[in-house]
Amino acid sequence: MIEFAQSSYQLEAIYYTPEFAVKLLKLSNKINFQEISVADMARISCLKTPPGVLALVNIPVSPVLDYSLLKEKFSLALDGVQDPGNMGTIIRTADWFGLEHIICSEDTVDVYNPKVVQATMGSLSRVKVHYADLAETLPALKLNIFGALLNGNNIYNTTFGPEGVLIMGNEGNGIRPEIQEIINTAVTIPQAGKAESLNVAMATAIFCSEICRNTLK
Amino acid sequence: MIEFAQSSYQLEAIYYTPEFAVKLLKLSNKINFQEISVADMARISCLKTPPGVLALVNIPVSPVLDYSLLKEKFSLALDGVQDPGNMGTIIRTADWFGLEHIICSEDTVDVYNPKVVQATMGSLSRVKVHYADLAETLPALKLNIFGALLNGNNIYNTTFGPEGVLIMGNEGNGIRPEIQEIINTAVTIPQAGKAESLNVAMATAIFCSEICRNTLK
Repeated sequence: MIEFAQSSYQLEAIYYTPEFAVKLLKLSNKINFQEISVADMARISCLKTPPGVLALVNIPVSPVLDYSLLKEKFSLALDGVQDPGNMGTIIRTADWFGLEHIICSEDTVDVYNPKVVQATMGSLSRVKVHYADLAETLPALKLNIFGALLNGNNIYNTTFGPEGVLIMGNEGNGIRPEIQEIINTAVTIPQAGKAESLNVAMATAIFCSEICRNTLK
Repeated sequence: MIEFAQSSYQLEAIYYTPEFAVKLLKLSNKINFQEISVADMARISCLKTPPGVLALVNIPVSPVLDYSLLKEKFSLALDGVQDPGNMGTIIRTADWFGLEHIICSEDTVDVYNPKVVQATMGSLSRVKVHYADLAETLPALKLNIFGALLNGNNIYNTTFGPEGVLIMGNEGNGIRPEIQEIINTAVTIPQAGKAESLNVAMATAIFCSEICRNTLK
């Protein structure tokens, strides 16, 4: 919540239960603080264990994606990721590795789904998530487009370089055929054991690590 | 379920709803098949969307850990991982990378928790999960013990070698101090962005990838 207060998101109000009052003093005076009862907090929270503090944040109107923002950096693209927990941890992992932008197909889970917001652990305040038609948007970026596919290049022998886009697919079906067509380089995480597949968030973490490993060494 | 039928687990019975009968013909005749109604399946399943087939599998009595099994290979150790989804995806990821054994502190979430079993996506039939006192058990293995800690060696400059153990810690608190003492090599995933931390399952995936990358190249 502090991360949202310090971001470009606009906070409408912060609701807190009495025992959380002291911790909030450090935040800006411009925010509308409202002390509420524990019972009221339980009513407005989606969580089974309601928090002591809750921010009401404006969902920003998504600006048209400014392609120049994606130059000279690496971004992620998600083609139909459906599970809120996966989406949230992908955002958190992107934030860890300093990837600033995620471009999602229009049928990807809503980034403001409460379970997604929760799973990002504050990283949603920093990572910019865009929704777009991937088949139209990504080629227009004129960047190298990588895609996580079976039977692609071995990830450990792939040079990702400092700018590009990596597409990750849906949990059950992967990247849909028409999006596979815009991929320049198919990349695979080789398998040593017998699991049928890797969870998409795990695979994304491994890709982020490989994309960034040369700059983090 | 097919994976459990083909493993060393002992299946007591397989319950299925009428529309699943055909698919089951491929399995062994030795298994006790029971056709039940959709309503009965909903009653015995823990899932909101009950499956069409459900296996009753004996929880095996854990044998005393045979240390010789862990020689010449890499294993994971979990110190107090609590979230069933994290535990399950860690098992699935270990299976992808061919890591056969996971040694858990006794307060780690129960591997037979239904949410864990579900998240492993069948990998529990192959990965062996042991519960033990880590401070006693791990040093007795006489293997190099790595631990995921802050301020350790850069993971991208670490040589894990073909045998060893990697300890991952609890979601909120990491590896507890007395277990930190048995670590020979502290290892860190460096951060490029601003996320406060990486999810433990994501971090484990990145570690598994680094441990195996030289053999998978």
